[in-house]
Amino acid sequence: MDHMGGGQTAGGQNCLAGVKILDLTQFEAGPSCTEALAWLGAEVVKVENPKAGDPGRSSAGLPGCDSWYFLQFNANKKSVTINLKSPRGLELVKQMAAKADVFIENFAPGAIERLGLGPDVIRAINPGIVYAQVKGFGEGSPYEHNLAFDMIAQACGGTMSITGEKDGPPLKPGPSLGDTGTGMLLAVSILGALFRRNSTGLGDHLQVAMQDSMMHYIRIAFAAQAQLGTAAPRAGSSSVTGGNPPMGTFPCKGGGPNDYVYVYTSRANPEHWRRLLGVIGREDLLGDARYDTPAARAEREPEVNGMIALWTRQHDKHEAMRIIGAAGIPSGAVLDTMELHSDPSFEARGIMQTIHHPKIGDYKMPAWPVRFDGKPPEVKPAPLLGQHSNEVLNEWLGLPAGEIDSLKQTGVI
Amino acid sequence: MDHMGGGQTAGGQNCLAGVKILDLTQFEAGPSCTEALAWLGAEVVKVENPKAGDPGRSSAGLPGCDSWYFLQFNANKKSVTINLKSPRGLELVKQMAAKADVFIENFAPGAIERLGLGPDVIRAINPGIVYAQVKGFGEGSPYEHNLAFDMIAQACGGTMSITGEKDGPPLKPGPSLGDTGTGMLLAVSILGALFRRNSTGLGDHLQVAMQDSMMHYIRIAFAAQAQLGTAAPRAGSSSVTGGNPPMGTFPCKGGGPNDYVYVYTSRANPEHWRRLLGVIGREDLLGDARYDTPAARAEREPEVNGMIALWTRQHDKHEAMRIIGAAGIPSGAVLDTMELHSDPSFEARGIMQTIHHPKIGDYKMPAWPVRFDGKPPEVKPAPLLGQHSNEVLNEWLGLPAGEIDSLKQTGVI
Repeated sequence: MDHMGGGQTAGGQNCLAGVKILDLTQFEAGPSCTEALAWLGAEVVKVENPKAGDPGRSSAGLPGCDSWYFLQFNANKKSVTINLKSPRGLELVKQMAAKADVFIENFAPGAIERLGLGPDVIRAINPGIVYAQVKGFGEGSPYEHNLAFDMIAQACGGTMSITGEKDGPPLKPGPSLGDTGTGMLLAVSILGALFRRNSTGLGDHLQVAMQDSMMHYIRIAFAAQAQLGTAAPRAGSSSVTGGNPPMGTFPCKGGGPNDYVYVYTSRANPEHWRRLLGVIGREDLLGDARYDTPAARAEREPEVNGMIALWTRQHDKHEAMRIIGAAGIPSGAVLDTMELHSDPSFEARGIMQTIHHPKIGDYKMPAWPVRFDGKPPEVKPAPLLGQHSNEVLNEWLGLPAGEIDSLKQTGVI
Repeated sequence: MDHMGGGQTAGGQNCLAGVKILDLTQFEAGPSCTEALAWLGAEVVKVENPKAGDPGRSSAGLPGCDSWYFLQFNANKKSVTINLKSPRGLELVKQMAAKADVFIENFAPGAIERLGLGPDVIRAINPGIVYAQVKGFGEGSPYEHNLAFDMIAQACGGTMSITGEKDGPPLKPGPSLGDTGTGMLLAVSILGALFRRNSTGLGDHLQVAMQDSMMHYIRIAFAAQAQLGTAAPRAGSSSVTGGNPPMGTFPCKGGGPNDYVYVYTSRANPEHWRRLLGVIGREDLLGDARYDTPAARAEREPEVNGMIALWTRQHDKHEAMRIIGAAGIPSGAVLDTMELHSDPSFEARGIMQTIHHPKIGDYKMPAWPVRFDGKPPEVKPAPLLGQHSNEVLNEWLGLPAGEIDSLKQTGVI
């Protein structure tokens, strides 16, 4: 990665040097949050059940081998196994909490308190700690005791209600916004609390609910509702705030499931439409009142879309994007995960990075996409279960090797 | 808001006290980022064109009145008008950059450099500044000079390819992930850079591209691809990693566009299916080999879904969610923006807050959804255009009132 940038700060992986995070999260919402902090240089220690660890490890159903899912959300972390049902194990977690800057968990509602590791306990041990929790539904919600997963948060948080065809049923957006979308809001908040702590020394108790977080990502739908006076509608691939034809996905040569190009002509810039007429060879319609304004085109939307599709069907999506984009009209090929994975530009820029995992081998995955002085942080493989038990228990708690061995033999770690 | 929590740190709005952000962003990707920082207490000063300001202000087409869209993304900020085409205006921005901790922009590609406010210029003035940029496509991408908007990023970043019905065309997810999703990743990164600066004094140059950011939110699709060996498919309201029937939205009483309930039975927890049989009154099928395993149910998916729908159609979505959730099965009513807006629980918990805007009046909007010691930061209305010109130019640069007046008269501010 050294060819990509230079200077003391390149890559961002030293931003949080020295910050210790005690990570009791699993699956995605919590792990995506702590992984972002790990990429920026925090020492993130996953505390995992000695038997099987984070259940995300086994989600691919490959015996003895961590899933790709797990690799995505746990890069650059350390793993320590501790049996939370053993009194000595619980004591170890409390001793680690005394040394940590952040404690974070996303167990089912009430579980962390039942374990005896609730916010009151941990903050009494370490008043300067930032204690962070991910909930499905917020405390005080009628559903605060309910289980939640990504799709439940997306149903109850409004994102499904605005996704789908105009006359079709609500659809789940593909991105796991209920999980990673929530994790990012918590990461911002933890960093805010850590920043303040530098001057005040005070910790905090942070809580974020997945349902609540969804509303943060659909604020244009709330704006549309204020304008319409009714709930924001579904709008296919157009916009909930109202479309401006032509606007949407258009079919391209090839006919495959993702052989489409998105074309957007902005209401705010009438040149987009005029330029597009040039691209499709219909300069004859320049200034034609039947098409010249957004209102006129909205009345003839199928006809207008048909003109564009006539042209796009003659080009593959990459060519269509290149030609339309070069003419100064916002345009984008619909790319699938394989095309993104195979595009050498992402690897050259460090946006995709290849890790070497001791069991899975080489694996290319998306990195933290923000570049610091020209390069993103360097991705390191997710830890094997318990890979850092010895190192962390020795460094954090000063436990000698002999004592760690005996903790292993007695099933505490 | 004082009734909602107590203590010195409640609400989080003092986390970034003293941090000065010079904000040259518009629309959503940049403003969502700086608004998060404003909510956590940074002093965010929007620098806007004296004529009309951030084009997002006029997106509702209400003459002389800021749009609801603008209100959502610019709460808790200050506004200073400066004409960037006047030499004296440019000089003011540079003088402000000398005082700022963060400089951020999301103009079209190359525009900030053409203005003479590129990273080299600003970092030479203030080596400790964090200079942050939002791009559509990353530097080094074949499309680095192309325009991008939310939908273009979502087309080219893979989110559309995994959204939609199995056999239907790709669909845009409703959430504006290309914008706010990108803004959140940049906010995390800016906070990381500011944290580091506390000890090193060094600034940084951050860049994030909207296309690149989309991949961060579809990492389960990359995991699915690794497992399948092909591009991640669309999966309707199920999951790209493979469904486990019954899983998805089921129609409820009422028949309206969002009268659906999401039901999720997990492969990892066979109790979900058994409990669901109890809910729908089909205990006769407990242990029936035709339905007892995920594989068996997958073979009879339409039949299994039909059984569930038979029950859900007899209940409204709220009741269905309550009954299924109480039985210990993950479940969620599909809520629309109006239902979320009207639910008193969000306001009681501070997740929705009502601001008083001098022109629009009372307006309820989603707040930053993370609670600090029991409450989210307090929302204050987005600034009127130039509302803080006098205050900020005086406080940051020491300009006396007379000089500010003359800058106004000459069109500089």
